[in-house]
Order: sequence, then structure tokens, then C-alpha cells
Amino acid sequence: MPNAPRRGFPDCIEGYGKVKPFTGAWDNLGAIEQVGVRLHSARPGVTKVLPSLRAAIDACELRDGATVSFHHHLRNGDGVLNLVLAEIAKAGLKDITVSASALFPVHATLIEHIRNGVVTGLAASTIYGPLAESVSKGELERPVLMYTHGGRARCIESGSLHIDVAFVAAPTADTYGNINGINGRAACGPLGYPVSDVHGADRVVAVTDNLVPYPATPIEISQDWVDYVVAVDSIGDPAQIVSGTTRVTTNPVGLRIAETAARVIEASGLLADGFSFQTGAGGVSLAAAAYLKEIMIKNRVQGSFAAGGITGGIVDMFDAGLFRALLDVQAFDLEAVDSFRRSEAHQTMSASMYANPHNRGCVVNQLDTVILGAAEVDLDFNVNVTTGTDGMILGGSGGHADTAAGAKLTLITTQLTAGNHAKVVDRVTTVTTPGETVDAVVTELGVAVNPRRPDLADRLITQQIPVVPIDELRSTAERQVGGRRARDPEGDRIVAIVEYRDGTVIDVVRAVQRTAAAKPWEHRESPDRG
Amino acid sequence: MPNAPRRGFPDCIEGYGKVKPFTGAWDNLGAIEQVGVRLHSARPGVTKVLPSLRAAIDACELRDGATVSFHHHLRNGDGVLNLVLAEIAKAGLKDITVSASALFPVHATLIEHIRNGVVTGLAASTIYGPLAESVSKGELERPVLMYTHGGRARCIESGSLHIDVAFVAAPTADTYGNINGINGRAACGPLGYPVSDVHGADRVVAVTDNLVPYPATPIEISQDWVDYVVAVDSIGDPAQIVSGTTRVTTNPVGLRIAETAARVIEASGLLADGFSFQTGAGGVSLAAAAYLKEIMIKNRVQGSFAAGGITGGIVDMFDAGLFRALLDVQAFDLEAVDSFRRSEAHQTMSASMYANPHNRGCVVNQLDTVILGAAEVDLDFNVNVTTGTDGMILGGSGGHADTAAGAKLTLITTQLTAGNHAKVVDRVTTVTTPGETVDAVVTELGVAVNPRRPDLADRLITQQIPVVPIDELRSTAERQVGGRRARDPEGDRIVAIVEYRDGTVIDVVRAVQRTAAAKPWEHRESPDRG
Repeated sequence: MPNAPRRGFPDCIEGYGKVKPFTGAWDNLGAIEQVGVRLHSARPGVTKVLPSLRAAIDACELRDGATVSFHHHLRNGDGVLNLVLAEIAKAGLKDITVSASALFPVHATLIEHIRNGVVTGLAASTIYGPLAESVSKGELERPVLMYTHGGRARCIESGSLHIDVAFVAAPTADTYGNINGINGRAACGPLGYPVSDVHGADRVVAVTDNLVPYPATPIEISQDWVDYVVAVDSIGDPAQIVSGTTRVTTNPVGLRIAETAARVIEASGLLADGFSFQTGAGGVSLAAAAYLKEIMIKNRVQGSFAAGGITGGIVDMFDAGLFRALLDVQAFDLEAVDSFRRSEAHQTMSASMYANPHNRGCVVNQLDTVILGAAEVDLDFNVNVTTGTDGMILGGSGGHADTAAGAKLTLITTQLTAGNHAKVVDRVTTVTTPGETVDAVVTELGVAVNPRRPDLADRLITQQIPVVPIDELRSTAERQVGGRRARDPEGDRIVAIVEYRDGTVIDVVRAVQRTAAAKPWEHRESPDRG
Repeated sequence: MPNAPRRGFPDCIEGYGKVKPFTGAWDNLGAIEQVGVRLHSARPGVTKVLPSLRAAIDACELRDGATVSFHHHLRNGDGVLNLVLAEIAKAGLKDITVSASALFPVHATLIEHIRNGVVTGLAASTIYGPLAESVSKGELERPVLMYTHGGRARCIESGSLHIDVAFVAAPTADTYGNINGINGRAACGPLGYPVSDVHGADRVVAVTDNLVPYPATPIEISQDWVDYVVAVDSIGDPAQIVSGTTRVTTNPVGLRIAETAARVIEASGLLADGFSFQTGAGGVSLAAAAYLKEIMIKNRVQGSFAAGGITGGIVDMFDAGLFRALLDVQAFDLEAVDSFRRSEAHQTMSASMYANPHNRGCVVNQLDTVILGAAEVDLDFNVNVTTGTDGMILGGSGGHADTAAGAKLTLITTQLTAGNHAKVVDRVTTVTTPGETVDAVVTELGVAVNPRRPDLADRLITQQIPVVPIDELRSTAERQVGGRRARDPEGDRIVAIVEYRDGTVIDVVRAVQRTAAAKPWEHRESPDRG
């Protein structure tokens, strides 16, 4: 098994169940069964509007042990998860599992609910902030399920993740449950993540601070999937919707890496009419997109589409005619929200359409190139964006493993070191994305090309792009940080299951022993997940 | 049972199975199970484009006894059903069931396939033309399943109708299966009907005469639901997309009925801001909408939405600001196609969102008023739009029973007689829409109000609208045609099952004995189904 995780894990994990181990990125395709759905049909004349979250919790007959779900379109500005969990706690419910598409520092309130036994299970594609540290220290009863964006949709559709009640933060909702993210004070644009939830959950509650008369248009999530509508004062802080950095890097090393990544794309042969592209909102990715823009204009290339979370930088390329369409699961900034509002070819996509390997064809399958970040890369080209070197959870896949598996050319951009540790290492602390789906690692010292892609190495050499063996990058990185990194001792307890997008387990995260190793979340790096 | 069908039917019907008899329009709501879905997941890098329909039939592994499905957005201009069935016949397949959202005269080609044993089962919400006569005469092996538009979505979602392969006529499709009805020479606008099919079928084939580079935007049906794409020369005749009459009636009797219907709406108390409305494309309905428009302008009423199949007449009202939104399952004419293309608040809806009683709330539940037609109405206010007086199939529910059940005010407009037969009768030949869902019957002689609505009768009397007992309408109608109608002798053989929208059986159609009674389909009336 060329991409075997760093260490073994048991066949069965308490609080998770039987483990189906990862065997390969493109295994487990073919015949798929999606689970049936249970719902309660509406009676004409009965209102869906309830006076409070508590009324909705009661109407949904939420019970101890239930699973509730949330989406992260409001990112670190989200107010809905905290509001709902506070009501769940007030209602005296226990043993709740929270399945979110992603969890942010603002969701640190969950720590208290964990300590009180209100929440005993978590699932998320990324976890940032104090909550991640709490989980890493073993505060949660059951291990966290960490899926990819596409894997989450698959989880729900397959029935392996059953949601009792989905709560949808709705920037605008009408009285019969039609929802959009276009209008309202917390407008966030496309609503790609909750689509699987509303289709799969037993009950669906729209939570809005912009309740409007029927029908609200445009319709992103339609009434036939929504049971109840609750108006609250605020679903979140629109100023925080865009969290994390969305500024082009000014670091000269970062700029050099970005420029090299753009040159690799040009050299790859993919940069022709119809070219398709995805990257994230990190500083290096934004810089790479800016370099790529220049090259596309110079070469008069019109791309077909850019996908992913969409940033203002990508919108600029689209508005300049460099892409015919944008396929957008989530706006990363307000420029993207505005573009989604005004441009018909800026289309929404569900998380399943985006990245689920178990449907009839997701968007990542159509990607020519994706640029992704890394906390660590290893000699097998495995990438870790789940934990720090110290084993502390600092994120998770998001769309990282999904886009890597789909794109013809997957580039990982990374500096050789960060702070006092190497980023190119023998074996990554946690495998998020298997090396077989990574084509090249772009660093300030040159580009390491996966031996599976000798054709790519040839093209880069022809274009005088420095190609360097990955173990040379590793050695240099180690030398720069003064020798091999010292690893913290690890506990036995499994605190997180890293599921590959197909539902196999690619790695686990074990409890961090030295609690002193924990640093404030603000200082932790957040590699780009595309 | 106040709305009992005209005659009994067995507990179990050969070729259909166990019968669950109709008990009431709003029974059978509550907990619903939607069936799971089987699909084949895509492998990155594998094309979906196949060179021919035959290649798609082979790739889908279509077998004897399978069910294939089609939508009717191209109406009498549809070319896809005929193309596909010709290929199925060439492939030597037998015992195929064709599930269509509706069947038109152009689909008379099916008669030959029925005679040859290629097709042994049919399901459709309406059947028009020679095929309807063939079925009525008993040429098909198994009885036709006649569902409503909403009932069809329910059938598929519940698993009671399993589709092996759905063929989607796509005015535009890209190479990975994104579909829209906006662009292309056969642009038909919203694609509300195939949504249930593509979600429920084992395999989905997009058939297009406008294959474009990836990605086609806007996306109405997305790639994650489509297995294969086949380009053909023509998916149909755009000139025939709008079939049937979409002209305002000039008949003075029809105009009087239309005006009375508009006055009934005004008198009902529903015509206030937020008013919602649906009607069909028949001449009287169009005239009623025109009268209503005048009243809305006069009274300065802004409606919330108009729904249904949308016509140019409704678009005019929308463009004049009389409705904030249009919710459109199918464009009835090119003005509606154009409006859908240019107006954001002209939204598409799936057949399920439109009218399925077994989801979390369909659009018909939000309707204030619907105006519908009738072939016959009886003393219990039951309506027949399925057969003629002679028992010959002349249509089917479409959205008739759905909208009647949802709307606060359901008006049936009809003349007392047509040709030599009465239209207000003792008992309808076939029950399509149960009387408990009908509020009033509007005729040239006055308005019969359902005794369930004394409040409405009072309002009409106050407004000096002539209210007439339904049996008086019946007597007058009978007198006008010179006595009670003579009914043709009926066979025992059941040729069609009329399913109510909830899946119960509300009536059956038996074989017509006197083949001489059949008239050319062109001369058969086609009452408005909304």
C-alpha cells in the first residue's frame, strides 16, 4: 500500500465502528446505493413559521442521542450553530452529535456543551480554533469524524451519516421555506453545503434574520425540503463571513512559489482554451492566480471554468473573460457574493455536485488544475492539512483531497519550513490527501514531481523550471530547522477519524499528550484547502 | 364516501396490483418514506458522451421488461420519445413500460410498438390523440397508469414507479451532462418535469441537439444526475412546442363564463395584496386571466405569484407588476420561455415542488385561486378531465387534481353542454378530481357553489353574482341536449387506472366497446388542466 498511513489503526474504533481502510484514491467506484429519505408531508393551510428555535426543536421532536447539522457559509461569522446549541442545552438534551460542514473559532462555545455532556459527537470537514484543541486533547467522548466536502455529501446520501434535524442558516427565507443567500444583511451567495443536509435529514429548519413574504426569489433551496422557518434577530456577523486571509501574499518567498506554480501550469500543456482551474483563498494561491491571469492574457487563453470556494481574485479573472463560467459551492468574500448576484454564468453547485465521488460525475472530475496548500508533505507526496507537527488538529481536508483526486494536475505549494519545523518530511503526521493524487510540490527551492508523472517532469525541465527530488527538499528543510524534528509523545486514544472521500479511513488522529504544546489557535497555520 | 367513483373496482387489478382506494383528498399525509436510489458513480477521465442512442441503450444495459421515462416539455413537438423507442424496437427489446409526464398526438408511433409487443405498459398524466383511442379500445396489454403531475413525482420518489432509464430531451447539454432549456433551437424554458426522473432512475441519458462545451450555464439539471449524453440531429420541432390553443376565446358564452370567474375571485375576498393564482392555457382561462388583470389594476392589488404552466398572458401580468414572481414547471408558449430567460423572479420548479402532496410543502398549497376546465362535472362537484362521455380517454389530470386540492378557491369553468351532450351530469363518466376539492362551477347560467362553502355562496350573492344549485345546471343542460345522455355500453376490461395524487385509486377506465364511437382526436375537447 504505497500511501499507507503513518501508523496502523484498529479494525474497529469505539464510537466510530468498523473501519474500512483506505486502499486507493479511485477504488470503491461503481454501483452505489443512496439511502431512502424519511419526511413528514405538509398539510395545506398549515404554517411553517414557528415562533422560536425552542418551538422548532420541540416540533422536530429532537431527542437525546440525535444528530443535528449545520453549514458553514457564514464561516467565522456564523451565529446559528451557537444559538441552536444553546437552546438544545436549555432543553436539557444530552448526547447530541453535531455534524457541520466546517467548524470555526466562533464555535468554541461547543467546548462547554461537550463538557456538560450535551454534545458527545462531532463531524466536520475542517475544525479551527479552540474547539480543535479541545478535541485534540481528548475532551470529546467519541472521536470526531473528519470528512472531505465531497465525502460529507456522500456520507449523508449513503446513510452512513443520518441527520435527525438540519438547521439551515438562511440569509433570506420566505414563510414557506424557500431560501436564498443572495439577499439579506448576512448574504453569503451560493448555498452549496446544506443541500445534502436538507435532502437527507428527517427534519429541516430554516433559521433566518430576513423572513420575507412568499415566495422569496431566487430560490436556492426550495420549500419542498424545509419543514419549519424560524426568524431570529441575527444569523451571524456579516463582517466575519469572510474569515481567514484573502489577501495576496507579500512575502517574497511566497511570491516566488506562486510564480513557479503558475509557470508549472503553463508548462504542463493544460493551459489551452477550455482550461479549468481551482484554488483557495490563501495568500500564495491568490498570488498564483494573479500570475496565472497574466499568463492567460499573454497567451490569449480562454478558460472554461473556475470552481470551488470563489474569491474576488477569481471573479476578476471571470469578469476579464478568462473563464466562461464559475462553479461556486461557497463565496469566500463579498466580491464573490456580488458576482453571484449579478452574473448568470456564476453558478451555484451543491457539495455533492462539487466533489462527491459517489454520484454520476462531480465538478472536480472536470478540473485541469488545482493549487493546494500543505501543513506537511512527505516523501510519498502524501499531504497533511489536518494536524500540526505536534499532532494538534488545525483544520482538515475541506475540498483538499477531493480536488486532488479529480484534477489532472494537482499542485501543492509550500515553503520548506515554517517556524522551527520542516514542512517536507519523511512521513506526514496525518495523511489527509494521498500522494497518488498529488502531481507536484512547488517550493522556493524548486518543484518535486511525483514519479508517477515523468511526463510532467520532462515538460518542466524543457521549460527550465527547477525540478528537485522530494528527498532533497526534505533534507534541505531538515537542515534549515537544525535536524530532524522532535515529535511529541502520542497518546493511544483516537480523537479523530480521517475519512477519505469514499468513506474509507485514511488515518486517525490520536490525543495530544503534552497539553503545553498547544498554542493559541490564532497563531496556527491554515494551509489552503482549495 | 361522498366522492365515491361512478362504479366499483376490484381490490386487485391485473397488470397494476393491489388497489388502495381513494378515501379523501387530504388523507394519507404525515410520515413518508422516499425510496433509496441506485446509481453508478463516475470515474474521473471517462467521457459521458456516447455516439448514438443505441450506444446509450447498450451502456444502460436496458433489458426486456424495463421502464423508460420521458418528459413533455416539448409537448407535441417532442422528437425524443419516438427516436428512443425506435432504437429500443430495433434492439429487439420487448415488454417495455413507457412512463411519460404526458403523451401527445405525436407519440402515436407508440401504437405500432404496442402492437409489436415492444411496449406493454404506459404511464402518463395526460394522453392525447390516437394513442389515447388505442388504449381506450384495449390495445395495450396492461392498464395505463394515469397519475397527476404531483402524483407522478410522488410515484417515483416513493419507489412505486421505478425507472430503469430516464431519457431527458435537453435543448442544451454540455459534455458532462449539465442541461438547460434556455438555449438551443428547441429551447422550452423550465425543465420541471424530468427532475424526479433524473433523481430516481437507475440511469439517466441526456439527448440533445445542442451539445456545447463544458460547462453549460445556467444549469437546470446538473451533471451529478446524468450518466450519458447523446447528440442527435433534432430533439423536436420547436414550432410545435406550444401545442393546443393558447388564444383568448372569442366565443361570447366563453367570455361570459370567464368574466364571471374573474368576478367570483374578486368577490371571494382573496383578491388582496399577496394574491396568488394559477390557470391553464385554454381560451376561457386566458380570458378569465385578462378580466382578472383589469380587476387587479383597478383595485391596485399586487399578487405574490402566479404558478403552473406559464403562458404569455400570465407573463404580461407579471411584467405589469401584478405578481412579484412566477413559479413555472413548464412554459406553455415562447413568451414564457423568453420571460424565464430574462426575469430572475420567473423561477423554475420541479413537478414535486409544484404539486407533490408527499413532500414538505408544494406550491399548490400556497395557491389562493385556480381556474380549471372540465369535460364533465357532476352533482357532487366531481370533475372528469380524463374521458369523454363515451368513455374514450381524452386527456387526464395533469395538474388538475393537484391544484384543486391545494388552492383555497378552486373554480371549474364550463359550458353547460358541448355538441350533443351535457357537461353537468348526474355522475361523471370518470372521476379525475374529487368534488370535495372543488369550490364552485362557473357556467353561462350562473355559479354552482359547493355546499361545503356556504361562506362563498354568501359572498357571491352579496355581489349579485347569480348562484344556482348544481342540479338546476344539470337539468338545464339535460334539457338543452334533449334528455338524458345515452351512455355507450361498457366493457369489463380495465384499460386505465386513475390514481389520485396520493397514490390511491380514484377511478378506473374500462374499454370502449363500440369502436365506431371513436372520433378523430382533433375534434375532441381538451379541457383546461391548469
